[in-house]
Amino acid sequence: MIFIGERINGGFKDIKRAIQEKDKSIIQHWAKIQTEAGADYLDVNMGAASNKVDDFIWMIEAVQETVETPISIDSNKLAFIESAIKVCKHPPIINSTTADKEKLDQLIPVAVEHNASLIGLCMDKKGAPQDVNQRVELGATIFSEAIDKGLSPDQIFLDPVTMPLKFLQPQAYHLIEAVRQFTLLSSPPPHIIVGLSNISSKASEMKLINRVFLIMCIEAGLDATICDVTDEELLNSAITTEIILNKHIYSDSYIKAYRESRRK
Amino acid sequence: MIFIGERINGGFKDIKRAIQEKDKSIIQHWAKIQTEAGADYLDVNMGAASNKVDDFIWMIEAVQETVETPISIDSNKLAFIESAIKVCKHPPIINSTTADKEKLDQLIPVAVEHNASLIGLCMDKKGAPQDVNQRVELGATIFSEAIDKGLSPDQIFLDPVTMPLKFLQPQAYHLIEAVRQFTLLSSPPPHIIVGLSNISSKASEMKLINRVFLIMCIEAGLDATICDVTDEELLNSAITTEIILNKHIYSDSYIKAYRESRRK
Repeated sequence: MIFIGERINGGFKDIKRAIQEKDKSIIQHWAKIQTEAGADYLDVNMGAASNKVDDFIWMIEAVQETVETPISIDSNKLAFIESAIKVCKHPPIINSTTADKEKLDQLIPVAVEHNASLIGLCMDKKGAPQDVNQRVELGATIFSEAIDKGLSPDQIFLDPVTMPLKFLQPQAYHLIEAVRQFTLLSSPPPHIIVGLSNISSKASEMKLINRVFLIMCIEAGLDATICDVTDEELLNSAITTEIILNKHIYSDSYIKAYRESRRK
Repeated sequence: MIFIGERINGGFKDIKRAIQEKDKSIIQHWAKIQTEAGADYLDVNMGAASNKVDDFIWMIEAVQETVETPISIDSNKLAFIESAIKVCKHPPIINSTTADKEKLDQLIPVAVEHNASLIGLCMDKKGAPQDVNQRVELGATIFSEAIDKGLSPDQIFLDPVTMPLKFLQPQAYHLIEAVRQFTLLSSPPPHIIVGLSNISSKASEMKLINRVFLIMCIEAGLDATICDVTDEELLNSAITTEIILNKHIYSDSYIKAYRESRRK
């Protein structure tokens, strides 16, 4: 599994305050905590806390002063992505493009130039996908454009767009079916990713729903998620799912062994 | 989901002692506890605690004095099953037949005569199944024999035979694939069941492995399990899986709502 820590996001009050007060310690606290918890990448997102590119660069540099964990550059602005990618010490993930031609034409070359990976959200200007087929069509568009322009399958993360179970219950199963079909796009397939927390948005049993949904998605072929990496039971559940799928060898200490194998 | 409580089994020391000392209170304690926890059936198995049919009948009658939960008659002896089925107040499940012709010829007519359901283990005299295809072939044999002789799909529970993850790691995924294929046998399909605890036999993370494996099996089409029904997180995980599969309508109190809808 590839775990991307979601916590350095201006949507959280402490991160918003850190950005506004230029307090690196909070950013660096979460960079360390998430890395120790098992994050393979750290998502960095300003949210509405600022609209200055300098603040975004400051966040990324604060992270990189503390840990070696690669960055997931989370912005929908090309200028922010282009500036951020230049300061990344390790090949980052760009989070994200949509399936719109304009976005793909802008972002794929940036990813190729910097040896970065790219998350492709299976949506476009017409809006969010409504069923399995729309997700698969949009995913195939992103995948084929990315391959044509020079990314390898290993650098492409398709995101079938998670929606809240509470409000759009049938979409959860559509998403799982889309994951299963994404695995057939190529051999090796692209990475498949979800922004996990969306599934339990406004729900009563958030951690339980996150955990069960992630297990189901991994069973269908998912291998990456942006999530609360500090939720130990969530990560242990994901690792156990991969053990049951025979992706790692069982030992009585399989959780510890997995975590140690990933330690930087 | 159909939950079958595994706890009234002579393999447990307290049940063994209860049988040997004819102490109904222990049997009845577990009958109540499991029913309150959400058991749809109570499995009754003597294990090696006795080989007398009278003791088996005594166990079933002890249960039926306390709760109205139907019985899962767990014995591999025809004489025991035939005696037990006559005292069952509600249509029971017979646990179990194999795919051997002799067993099918004996047990299917007993099930038909008493309006009972029948668990069919996908194994035969040659031994346990080694892959997906063997499971599917044996399952199809059991299913077609049972239909031919008068059971309905709703009375047939196919069991793809769970093996310990610790010792036979690849079998777990073979089993999940077999579950997925069983759903294609007919419309409506038969029930699909696993004896859950086998998956985590001798493993270090028993509850975690049970929970993750059950979620994966339900995602593939499983709708019944013999398990520790007192493991609240296990049952909540199973219910959540069915919510994500859109089998029940989401509400913030979906766990409570599910449990109340099943209360006898």
